[in-house]
Amino acid sequence: MALRYLSGVQPSGQLHLGNYFGAIRSHIENQDGAFYFIANYHALTTIQNAEVLRKNILDAACTYLALGLDPERATFYRQSDIPEVTELSWLLSTVTGMGLLERAHSFKEKKARGLPATMGLFTYPILMAADILLFDADVVPVGPDQVQHVEMTRDMATYFNTTYGETFKLPKFELGTPVPVPGLDGEKMSKSYGNFIPIFERGKALKKLVMSIKTDATPLEDPKDPEKCSVFALYRLFASPEQIEQMRQNYAGGNYGYGHAKLALLDVIQERFADAYAKYDHFQSHPDEVEDILRAGAKKARAVARNRLDAARKACGLD
Amino acid sequence: MALRYLSGVQPSGQLHLGNYFGAIRSHIENQDGAFYFIANYHALTTIQNAEVLRKNILDAACTYLALGLDPERATFYRQSDIPEVTELSWLLSTVTGMGLLERAHSFKEKKARGLPATMGLFTYPILMAADILLFDADVVPVGPDQVQHVEMTRDMATYFNTTYGETFKLPKFELGTPVPVPGLDGEKMSKSYGNFIPIFERGKALKKLVMSIKTDATPLEDPKDPEKCSVFALYRLFASPEQIEQMRQNYAGGNYGYGHAKLALLDVIQERFADAYAKYDHFQSHPDEVEDILRAGAKKARAVARNRLDAARKACGLD
Repeated sequence: MALRYLSGVQPSGQLHLGNYFGAIRSHIENQDGAFYFIANYHALTTIQNAEVLRKNILDAACTYLALGLDPERATFYRQSDIPEVTELSWLLSTVTGMGLLERAHSFKEKKARGLPATMGLFTYPILMAADILLFDADVVPVGPDQVQHVEMTRDMATYFNTTYGETFKLPKFELGTPVPVPGLDGEKMSKSYGNFIPIFERGKALKKLVMSIKTDATPLEDPKDPEKCSVFALYRLFASPEQIEQMRQNYAGGNYGYGHAKLALLDVIQERFADAYAKYDHFQSHPDEVEDILRAGAKKARAVARNRLDAARKACGLD
Repeated sequence: MALRYLSGVQPSGQLHLGNYFGAIRSHIENQDGAFYFIANYHALTTIQNAEVLRKNILDAACTYLALGLDPERATFYRQSDIPEVTELSWLLSTVTGMGLLERAHSFKEKKARGLPATMGLFTYPILMAADILLFDADVVPVGPDQVQHVEMTRDMATYFNTTYGETFKLPKFELGTPVPVPGLDGEKMSKSYGNFIPIFERGKALKKLVMSIKTDATPLEDPKDPEKCSVFALYRLFASPEQIEQMRQNYAGGNYGYGHAKLALLDVIQERFADAYAKYDHFQSHPDEVEDILRAGAKKARAVARNRLDAARKACGLD
């Protein structure tokens, strides 16, 4: 049987090119049999405004659907449609020592960034473990900052299995090859740095963003080093090998300005997402269709979750 | 409208006379419209054996039913039949600072007693807050050690209401008059001291326990001080005013030994619980009836909980 991939999508607002190349693209490529969910319980640790959260949830769903998520191939659902994850969180918390949570990097890092140290932020890795264990996931694709969460999930599953008997499968993480996606200022593209290009930004607004990418002051006529240029770094993510080779020559030949390169980048972005734009607009204007898809996904997901949770409850004596 | 009382019953094993006079008796007296639940999610922080927990849950239910809990008057349910409490716990955790939990006496005290510092033990007050808030409770009858938990519940409700708009009613605690119930050794009767008389201990086993109550060495013929005697302290909890007055005279008169007093105590205990013994045996041998009662209670309770939880979810943007 194929391995089951599982991953959560943060409904953090406009998803951007960094999210696309960092996660979304590979989610879509590996979607057969996968479980992907919109992590709206988690989002409450940072978004405490109902209107904003609702909008972000819809946006995350439209983004995935527009970019090729096929609800017939993957199980796509909203975390809050599976309240079983909160129940399993409680069960896991009774076998998990505080020390494990206190060692979590992400909590330390978020506290250091000035987020208030709420219990939600502290207990977050337990909810994440429940998200994974409830669906018998084999593989959790992660970035480097998430490796520890999967390790903690394995620890919690082991505590539970040791205390109550074999119940949960231990998931593995899969560390994707990091894809450097520079932001407008040349730093890593990130929501929190405010240097991002939203995937579904379009027209003049998109052009304005692309034209604002920071470049150096090499004069128009001089040759330019593509390896030191954010515009080229973004271009190569979208372009074909032939286009990339041509662009290298343009840079090397001189008399080719950054303005030209930016317009070429704008073209390849718009080409890549042309179909997605149309689908995105369709789903944004048909929220009922999105709702139906998410509900159908939740129904499939919940059957799996229920089965695992019932086993866990029985193991504890709550049946 | 009458105030709604709510209280949880720990399925900690054989309930004893200390539990009876400390809580159960007043629960039964104030049962009209009350919500009482068997706190089996909570129990997982101390009982990690499915067989033991199942037995304890049944025992707690039989105890309450035998002592007069009427499922037509009170809503009597098992906490784990209302998984909504775990979901609300997550919502509350996202608005609750770690500091509040770190200040909890019960956590410090349990840690000091050597219980492992699990996340369940640490986050326990959040689950307790969810237990209370989900049922719109007005009054939570507590012992002195539980006052802080109700205060924390009020704090969490306030955080939630402030963040998301008025959603939860702030409950009050009601501190019962403490009833001193001495154990076999004269110390406070407590499960953890091993000095207790189970409510449903009977026959020779009960007699043996009663006869083992520690008394002083005053000779049979001498007058005795009832105020310094554990046997008298227990006797007065069960006897009528006339019986108590008579017993005072027996103590004062001399030629009345502690053995006599113990037999009199045995009599009043057995009289008080005569009906309850029969009912307890009935329910213990008809677990299906108990199950039906708990399920019917859960159905009633869950409707209330669902309503509150839906309001909370909507306030957060999870609808």
